[in-house]
Amino acid sequence: MRNFSVTVLGSSSATPTANRNPSAQIVNINEHCYLIDCGEATQIQIRKYGVRLQKMDTIFISHLHGDHFYGLPGLLGTLHLLGRTNELTIYAPKGLKDIIDVIHKYSDTCLRYQLKIIEIDTTQNKVIYENKHLAVKTIPLNHRVACCGFLFTEMPHQRNLKKEKLAEYKIPVEYINAIKAGDDYTLPDGKVIPNTELILPAAEIRSYAYCSDTCYHEPIIEQIKNCNLLYHESTFANDKADRATETYHSTAAQAATIALKANVKKLMLGHFSARYNDVSVLLNEALPIFEHSHIAEEGITYDVI
Amino acid sequence: MRNFSVTVLGSSSATPTANRNPSAQIVNINEHCYLIDCGEATQIQIRKYGVRLQKMDTIFISHLHGDHFYGLPGLLGTLHLLGRTNELTIYAPKGLKDIIDVIHKYSDTCLRYQLKIIEIDTTQNKVIYENKHLAVKTIPLNHRVACCGFLFTEMPHQRNLKKEKLAEYKIPVEYINAIKAGDDYTLPDGKVIPNTELILPAAEIRSYAYCSDTCYHEPIIEQIKNCNLLYHESTFANDKADRATETYHSTAAQAATIALKANVKKLMLGHFSARYNDVSVLLNEALPIFEHSHIAEEGITYDVI
Repeated sequence: MRNFSVTVLGSSSATPTANRNPSAQIVNINEHCYLIDCGEATQIQIRKYGVRLQKMDTIFISHLHGDHFYGLPGLLGTLHLLGRTNELTIYAPKGLKDIIDVIHKYSDTCLRYQLKIIEIDTTQNKVIYENKHLAVKTIPLNHRVACCGFLFTEMPHQRNLKKEKLAEYKIPVEYINAIKAGDDYTLPDGKVIPNTELILPAAEIRSYAYCSDTCYHEPIIEQIKNCNLLYHESTFANDKADRATETYHSTAAQAATIALKANVKKLMLGHFSARYNDVSVLLNEALPIFEHSHIAEEGITYDVI
Repeated sequence: MRNFSVTVLGSSSATPTANRNPSAQIVNINEHCYLIDCGEATQIQIRKYGVRLQKMDTIFISHLHGDHFYGLPGLLGTLHLLGRTNELTIYAPKGLKDIIDVIHKYSDTCLRYQLKIIEIDTTQNKVIYENKHLAVKTIPLNHRVACCGFLFTEMPHQRNLKKEKLAEYKIPVEYINAIKAGDDYTLPDGKVIPNTELILPAAEIRSYAYCSDTCYHEPIIEQIKNCNLLYHESTFANDKADRATETYHSTAAQAATIALKANVKKLMLGHFSARYNDVSVLLNEALPIFEHSHIAEEGITYDVI
């Protein structure tokens, strides 16, 4: 099975704390890395946790609040100084290009690699990126500024042939592709061998949904349905439910309710308000609603299984 | 004597390393804090080293290369979230206001405190700030973009009267201010008591010069002459002297030469290239030229004496 995992680089909300950084995650699929969000000091976290910077070609930014992108200018500069020449693409809501352009203008910066900033429409639920390993789809969220989550879905796995069956039925090589595509095979005597007897079932297609920042927003349920791992922001505990509504954030209980209704396999809680020194209060409010709830923690890798 | 000290928050140049952050320093004078430069993650360093954020009203930015100001947007946001209402003033070269404005526009940020960004002319050697404790003067440097250092000079100390002498000569209270201002005192019998017999000498006026980033640039010598503490960038060792010239940076030996020629009391070396895991190579090249050379290190406070 392909490696498919998520490493948390930051689990704090707007204000960093002594041991929590602002939002950033690395999605690793089949040894290809993708960065989601890039709060301040993300490049320091990347170095700390040994992520291979130059292997990353694509960055996804959910929205333009500082705790989700203030680390980007520094990261772009460091990639340049480390000698990067490969193109880098950033998917982000409108505005990021203007911000990066004005910073580079005054700092007289000219990157030696090509930087493409692609504006995403955060109101659409659509595929914005795909390659042979995965597709990435936007998930419209409900926050104070234009904001979307991202659903990372594996591309279908190649199905493996049952070699002993091919030998048993003496199936000629020119039929292989048709069988891989799902065809049955008819023997010279007219007997039909069903496709399922010739090929192993494909591995399950896994998916990871990243949903930060948003208030409790039921329309996402359909879009993240049955995903293997859901990261849902849980900035506040129940004691601050009013504050969550007011600031378009969620409580841990709301995140767990979304996880339950979407029938996901596992929930990762994050984007914690700096007021919670001990975030187990958030976990303890999520668990009774959704038992497969976990806490996002810096440097920890969560498998998408 | 007033407290006058400098705490280093970052001693690295463009790229942060595992234990070195980009440029930032806190000048503390008489329990008032001033921030010089604000590389990425400065707010995290401030928290780590226990600097009281809200006590800081003034920030000085030497130039607009990212390693000297990428931490600013995050710091401004955190001050807002922590409830700051006091005005904050930033002195910086042209461009910073445009950068902060475009970031705040797209992130829909409206600070609850007044932010004043005052454009400085980095080509002038002039006082840009003063209060009852200190004056700050720009030091034009020679770098790839508009860049200046800052000279922090104490305001003259109040002179203390020798109370036993006032009693001995029965000097009436109405003469005190004149004596403090430097007057002698004439006794009823016509004998003149010289001022120096009545008052203690004022404490020495101390100064701290921050010079980063610059190539070897002799015009600064006159401007920082006799200062108590000089921070001079030393990005490279002698093996990279050509690279220093090419990038408008200095070697440790050049920093030491400036310190020697300016007759400063103590030199602090910093802004080290990430290539030096062990920065003692830089110190060892500075010491034979200027014996009072030291290495800047995160979290260490250097007294200005």
